Amino acid sequence: MGRRALPLLPLLLALLAPGAALPAPSASRALHRMRGPSSLAARHAVDKKFSTHYFPQKIDHFGFNLGKTFKQRYLISAKHWKKDGGSILFYTGNEGDIIWFCNNTGFMWDVAEELKAMLVFAEHRYYGESLPFGADSFKDPKHLNFLTSEQALADFAELIKHLRKAIPGTRNQPVIAIGGSYGGMLAAWFRMKYPHMVVGALAASAPIWQFEDMVPCDGFMNIVTTDFRKSGPNCSDSIRKSWDVINHYGSTGTGLNWLSDNLRLCSPLKTPQDLQHLKEWMTETWINLAMVDYPYESDFLQPLPAWPIKEVCQHLKNPNVSDSQLIHGVFQALNVYYNYTGQAKCLNTSETATGNLGSQGWGYQACTEMVMPFCSNGVHDMFEPHTWDLKSYSDECFKQWHVRPRPHWIRTLYGGKNISSHTNIIFSNGDLDPWSGGGVTKDISDTLVAIVIPEGAHHLDLRSNNAFDPLTVLLARSLEVKYMQQWITDFYNSLAKQD
Amino acid sequence: MGRRALPLLPLLLALLAPGAALPAPSASRALHRMRGPSSLAARHAVDKKFSTHYFPQKIDHFGFNLGKTFKQRYLISAKHWKKDGGSILFYTGNEGDIIWFCNNTGFMWDVAEELKAMLVFAEHRYYGESLPFGADSFKDPKHLNFLTSEQALADFAELIKHLRKAIPGTRNQPVIAIGGSYGGMLAAWFRMKYPHMVVGALAASAPIWQFEDMVPCDGFMNIVTTDFRKSGPNCSDSIRKSWDVINHYGSTGTGLNWLSDNLRLCSPLKTPQDLQHLKEWMTETWINLAMVDYPYESDFLQPLPAWPIKEVCQHLKNPNVSDSQLIHGVFQALNVYYNYTGQAKCLNTSETATGNLGSQGWGYQACTEMVMPFCSNGVHDMFEPHTWDLKSYSDECFKQWHVRPRPHWIRTLYGGKNISSHTNIIFSNGDLDPWSGGGVTKDISDTLVAIVIPEGAHHLDLRSNNAFDPLTVLLARSLEVKYMQQWITDFYNSLAKQD
Repeated sequence: MGRRALPLLPLLLALLAPGAALPAPSASRALHRMRGPSSLAARHAVDKKFSTHYFPQKIDHFGFNLGKTFKQRYLISAKHWKKDGGSILFYTGNEGDIIWFCNNTGFMWDVAEELKAMLVFAEHRYYGESLPFGADSFKDPKHLNFLTSEQALADFAELIKHLRKAIPGTRNQPVIAIGGSYGGMLAAWFRMKYPHMVVGALAASAPIWQFEDMVPCDGFMNIVTTDFRKSGPNCSDSIRKSWDVINHYGSTGTGLNWLSDNLRLCSPLKTPQDLQHLKEWMTETWINLAMVDYPYESDFLQPLPAWPIKEVCQHLKNPNVSDSQLIHGVFQALNVYYNYTGQAKCLNTSETATGNLGSQGWGYQACTEMVMPFCSNGVHDMFEPHTWDLKSYSDECFKQWHVRPRPHWIRTLYGGKNISSHTNIIFSNGDLDPWSGGGVTKDISDTLVAIVIPEGAHHLDLRSNNAFDPLTVLLARSLEVKYMQQWITDFYNSLAKQD
Repeated sequence: MGRRALPLLPLLLALLAPGAALPAPSASRALHRMRGPSSLAARHAVDKKFSTHYFPQKIDHFGFNLGKTFKQRYLISAKHWKKDGGSILFYTGNEGDIIWFCNNTGFMWDVAEELKAMLVFAEHRYYGESLPFGADSFKDPKHLNFLTSEQALADFAELIKHLRKAIPGTRNQPVIAIGGSYGGMLAAWFRMKYPHMVVGALAASAPIWQFEDMVPCDGFMNIVTTDFRKSGPNCSDSIRKSWDVINHYGSTGTGLNWLSDNLRLCSPLKTPQDLQHLKEWMTETWINLAMVDYPYESDFLQPLPAWPIKEVCQHLKNPNVSDSQLIHGVFQALNVYYNYTGQAKCLNTSETATGNLGSQGWGYQACTEMVMPFCSNGVHDMFEPHTWDLKSYSDECFKQWHVRPRPHWIRTLYGGKNISSHTNIIFSNGDLDPWSGGGVTKDISDTLVAIVIPEGAHHLDLRSNNAFDPLTVLLARSLEVKYMQQWITDFYNSLAKQD
């Protein structure tokens, strides 16, 4: 796949169009990065027993000229599944290796017995092993042409149809779509577009409204900022202040050296581009921390302590110290994220670009359908001001992928805020999660319900039960199960009526 | 467009795979042919005043590689439209010239004032003037690749979005999708897939279940037969008997001459293929009569008397007459359809292939998504026995279009019989219409309602009011308007709540 063959779009954009549309891509990248595989995933793969399968999918569901197929990977666990009164929980895979999602969606494993459920994890095309054109999949716009959410949803539909035929006992069982983040968007959209395939959807931390003209572009960065502000006195102010200091020192060669030394960077800063890159790397770090601000020790993106932002803020208590003290605080804060284990000798600013299995795919998607505007103003948030500039975004997309984004298409296709005619979708969001700014956080109807988890970061509810889980996430999970049980009951009642 | 450049798929199939899958294609062809333009359309075009517009549509809504656009034609009449409390009736154009549909959907014109409605008629891509690649549109599978119902629905969505922006006053008005036949299928599917775009759909004579494993394949021909059986004593028996006579005489050269003379064919029969063609032409004629068995004089397909099948059956009262008498009766029956004006000197068996603007497009669609199985057994129906043979159908499709049909796709995409989670669709069907066999003729829920018109042929309800309309169609139209008014009221109530 050549993971690092192409620099990430966000960084590229940043480097080429300074002052333009920065935070958005960083956020996308962060979203993306969150999904990378790790050794932990491999460990869990042993614990959570599943079988691996492949299903031949049409590369193009929406045309008849290209007759080719590819093998979509999917995983099955049927340990707790019952033919009698059972159900199928179907994970609508997102931008990464499906084994990673399988191992990081403990919720499904935790509720399988209660719902007598078969677990199915379907890999998203162009990610993991599900590459339509193998090594050529990311070669050019022609090969990338079939990387869209519509094609992915059609894959899910065909796969469910296949499973119902292939596995005796599944034919008359209810299927529930479950996904987190982009996978949550897909779960919701799947219920909207293929309601005959799934009785409902759990869309966790799914920013289906993080698109043009649906929510303010600064919501995302505001939430990140709030997380820091609430995690320690003057914490967000200190970070806001740090940009000025960095810019000041970054304007001279001596200053760059000073910064490199004080931040203990592995590669010293040499050019204005290096400085720009440093700031994006830091921005992404603060964003990542907001997403994974979990109440217990975890190693989702990095090995981290419980409530990592609180730890970070221990080092950022006073913005009015000397430049040297402030930068030292920033270094210590970064160290919480990058060196919790104490093994790192220096900070590697290229690090956030690694371990990111689907970077190419998400870069393309962000340049076609998934155009998410972000902005910051440096007043209500702790970041440098950046406006959302579609034109430069589009130009960069064209340079990188030879395609132009269609920012309105998602709304035309999936309805934007006008989705009240649909039913049976749970939108769960954590207040700590910056993506909740683009999510559904209020009930739309009796059957399009929002669950808000005040102490929750990015889809905390989809993670395994943990002794340190706050009560609010336990309640959320319990409510989610209640809704799912209702859908299952409704399904069987409706089936009984037909007989 | 080269209307006659390619023979119709149905005929081709018939010629190449005798005894295989005949009735289906004939029916498709008949459906299709029904839509051809005529001089009548041009006349009405003057009466029904509309303006003609063109909107640039992406040729491929579902990919980003092909950036090209084409001009979709659409018509607007705003005579009765009100900005205050008005609505938009949106005809989801089907397989033909949109002016033809505009002029043959008098219902919309009749109810425009009552609903303060703007009328919009959107042409289906690859028909009429809306050709994605101009003269090359039907050249090969590559150019035909974007002729699918999904692309057509996306065109409708983009067009509505455009109209809302472009026409002041439309933005906060409810849109209702209306269509007949394949256009009715599109109207229903549009509400299913884009419920945020339209508050409801009137799907008239829309055989959304005329697909594999949804309804018996012999339903269509049974209804045609019933129409003839009920229209005169021994009528269907006489037609059933006629095939034996035709086959008997068709087995020798002398017999072929005899048939040609007695049927007064313009081109004498010479080969077994000619005989096969004759039988298909006759089959199609009986089918066409069933579709347009209207209660008043009309010239939809041909100038015809009121209740044309009754006229036909006047000549087919006794199956037990001599061969010569039976064939003479068949000739007179055909004459009702082909020579009501008395101008024809002979019967032209190539005639049903003319005037058919969208034959190429529909031929391709029937070979890709719109795979409608038909069969007959000669016992319960009055036709020769034909089984549904997907393999030979597929082989013929491949020969003609270099594509293979995907018979299951429509069900996967649109839900087949499992559509109860949708809302606000009226399915109207006439009992005389053979297509009602594949339609929704029973309520599915409070908001997915079926209206059956006992004396109705193919979407009689969409035609203009007529003094000879049976009471049942008047009731149907009145009920349709009532539902539409309810959707409009609901829309405005919901809007008022938001304010």
